[in-house]
Amino acid sequence: MSTFFEDLVVGRIVELGVHTFSAADIKEFAAKYDPQPFHMDEEAAKASLFGALCASGWHTVAIYTGFNIRTRQKAEAAATARGETIARWGPSPGFKDLKWPRPVFAGDTVSFRQTVANKIDLKSRPERGMLVTRGEGFNQKGEPVFGVTGQILVPRREPLGTV
Amino acid sequence: MSTFFEDLVVGRIVELGVHTFSAADIKEFAAKYDPQPFHMDEEAAKASLFGALCASGWHTVAIYTGFNIRTRQKAEAAATARGETIARWGPSPGFKDLKWPRPVFAGDTVSFRQTVANKIDLKSRPERGMLVTRGEGFNQKGEPVFGVTGQILVPRREPLGTV
Repeated sequence: MSTFFEDLVVGRIVELGVHTFSAADIKEFAAKYDPQPFHMDEEAAKASLFGALCASGWHTVAIYTGFNIRTRQKAEAAATARGETIARWGPSPGFKDLKWPRPVFAGDTVSFRQTVANKIDLKSRPERGMLVTRGEGFNQKGEPVFGVTGQILVPRREPLGTV
Repeated sequence: MSTFFEDLVVGRIVELGVHTFSAADIKEFAAKYDPQPFHMDEEAAKASLFGALCASGWHTVAIYTGFNIRTRQKAEAAATARGETIARWGPSPGFKDLKWPRPVFAGDTVSFRQTVANKIDLKSRPERGMLVTRGEGFNQKGEPVFGVTGQILVPRREPLGTV
């Protein structure tokens, strides 16, 4: 979405991409960043609360982030190719409500999407508005495995109050 | 903290560890998970809002997670060595209020710590209580660069209502 604030439509959903989590990738991420036995070893995972090898939640959100950024970059490249002005998004005041309602097991295929959840006018920042996004991931059974609420400042075409 | 719910003291701070973010590590993480120019290339970063190469916020929270998990595992190992029963923490209903108030630039050294922010009795889960943690990171100037509120279920020594 290389998009200005005015162009964003609340409720619009963007499909970001689909990723299959391999056991090797799950273990590699976990060894570096989240070395819990159920992310590192099949046998230890069987004996855990989860029952099978599953991805670190931080791995899942990292994959979501990659899709999110690449989707925006593709839209920016397309806009540039059309000779349009690019809206440079950012910065972000942070994320909220990061949840993993079910494990992502080795071999699971997760579909990620992002919804325009809200648009907030900022009187303190008339050049930018606050976009609130809801990111979600669903496994191959359609079950939710991931959710996060994002916030990012998005340039306006016209400053707030001038139109 | 291999600790039962009763043992947790609100306000207690645990120093988790100190990490220096190298340019190479910043670029490697970004290439995989957050390929924005200011996380990938020094020259592009100079021209960005941030002004210099800086780490993905997801890289920062991943490093925090590694320290957090390893600190708990060390405490568990020490408790095991003393012949004590281990409190197996989890699962987590998720994280809140993830913020990066300043960039983590290449070469910055970040000190991570965790505070016991709150303890919540769960009538629905008398065997476990909800621990709320506040994770923070500070750079070498003492400036906050990272914060997150965590939630995790922690076993009680005695079920709620029995003592």
